[in-house]
This record gives sequence, structure tokens and C-alpha cells, in this order.
Amino acid sequence: MIPEVIRLADKLAAFSDHWNPRIVGAYNGNELRVAKIKGAFSWHSHAATDEMFMPISGMLKIEFRDGERHLRPGEILVVPQGVEHRPVAEEECEVLLLDREGEPNTGVNPSDYTRAKLERI
Amino acid sequence: MIPEVIRLADKLAAFSDHWNPRIVGAYNGNELRVAKIKGAFSWHSHAATDEMFMPISGMLKIEFRDGERHLRPGEILVVPQGVEHRPVAEEECEVLLLDREGEPNTGVNPSDYTRAKLERI
Repeated sequence: MIPEVIRLADKLAAFSDHWNPRIVGAYNGNELRVAKIKGAFSWHSHAATDEMFMPISGMLKIEFRDGERHLRPGEILVVPQGVEHRPVAEEECEVLLLDREGEPNTGVNPSDYTRAKLERI
Repeated sequence: MIPEVIRLADKLAAFSDHWNPRIVGAYNGNELRVAKIKGAFSWHSHAATDEMFMPISGMLKIEFRDGERHLRPGEILVVPQGVEHRPVAEEECEVLLLDREGEPNTGVNPSDYTRAKLERI
């Protein structure tokens, strides 16, 4: 069986809400996710997974307790496991994420942004 | 310590040879790699890792024994472990790859394209 092509634009066109990642693929026990984000997320860390961010459109800021990084399409940031961070987007940003399978979007720090179960699209 | 932003264009500007992936980042025991490819690679499979392909520029064809898939920027294909495949690019294509740490570029099928050790840039 031949694997399917994951067309990110098609996946992103399928929803409009913010901070609600959708699962779009699998890689070695990790989930490829896409999300639309706007505003500031809650501070959190992931106990047992790194987290990869790659903007597809727009600008993404990742705040850390001791600084920040700015990302645009064509750029990638991997937040190591255990490192506190907070994604922020002044304008809407579409982002590709990679997280270990089943990892909550707010890691070990539940908040109003926590999504109990992510939808696969 | 804050992780560094991986700027794919900068990484890709640092070399020009084909079929020689460079390691540009790490995620959960996997290696983010970039490569420039042109022509047809050798048939191979990876015994213990999926392999993710995401074109950054150009068009990428992945041939399978029973069909093929075509990819352009904004699209992703994950080749499951154990599945024979052959990447082909009619014109030069720049691609982002994800492979388990240390995985040979030709998997379990050494060929003239095998690179003994990948460079980190």
C-alpha cells in the first residue's frame, strides 16, 4: 500500500479555530499536527517529548523563561523536552508541529487551552 | 539555554552536491536533514525507521514497487519502515528529511549513493 501525500494547505483549509491542533500524519511514534494560532498560549513544558515548530504561514514567536525566538516559514525550532515555553502569534499563524503520540498540547501544565483529544483529519 | 532557529535556506546555501544529506537538527532521537537531489536514487528500504520527505523547493517523485507519489512544497510524505522506495527528481529539488538517528541514507541497501557518515551543519 502506498502512503498518502499530506497536503498541508488542504488540511489547514478544513478548520478555522485557534489553538486546536489536528493530527495529519504519523512518524516513528510521533504525530504530525497542524494548528492555527493567534494570541498568546499558556506557559507549559513537555515531560517526555521534544516539540518541533515550523510555521507554514505567518510569524511565530516562541517565548522562553530567559528569552525568545522568532520564526517564519522555512524555519524550524525544536523545543527540547522539559523546557518551559509559550507560543505567541500577533497575527494568525499556521504551523506544522511534531509531538510524541498522545502528548497533550499543554504538556504537563493543563490550562484553558488544553484539548483533551485531538482530532485526526 | 534557548534552542537555535534552524533556517533551512541558510543550511541549503552551504552546499551544492546532490544526494548527500546534511544533519541540521535533532528531534526525539531522530535527525532533521536537508538534501539537494537530482535524478534517480537507488531502491532501498529502512528496517527500523519511517522516513519523512518534505520538498522545500522543486518537485519530488517517490517511486514505490506498486506506484508513485508526487510532492511539491507544502506537502509531506512519510514512507513507513520496511517499504521499498526510490526518490526521483527530474530537476533539482531541495528536501527536508526526518530519519532515526544514524540511519544510513540508503537504509539496508548499500549502493553508490551510500554516505558513510553524514555531516552536521
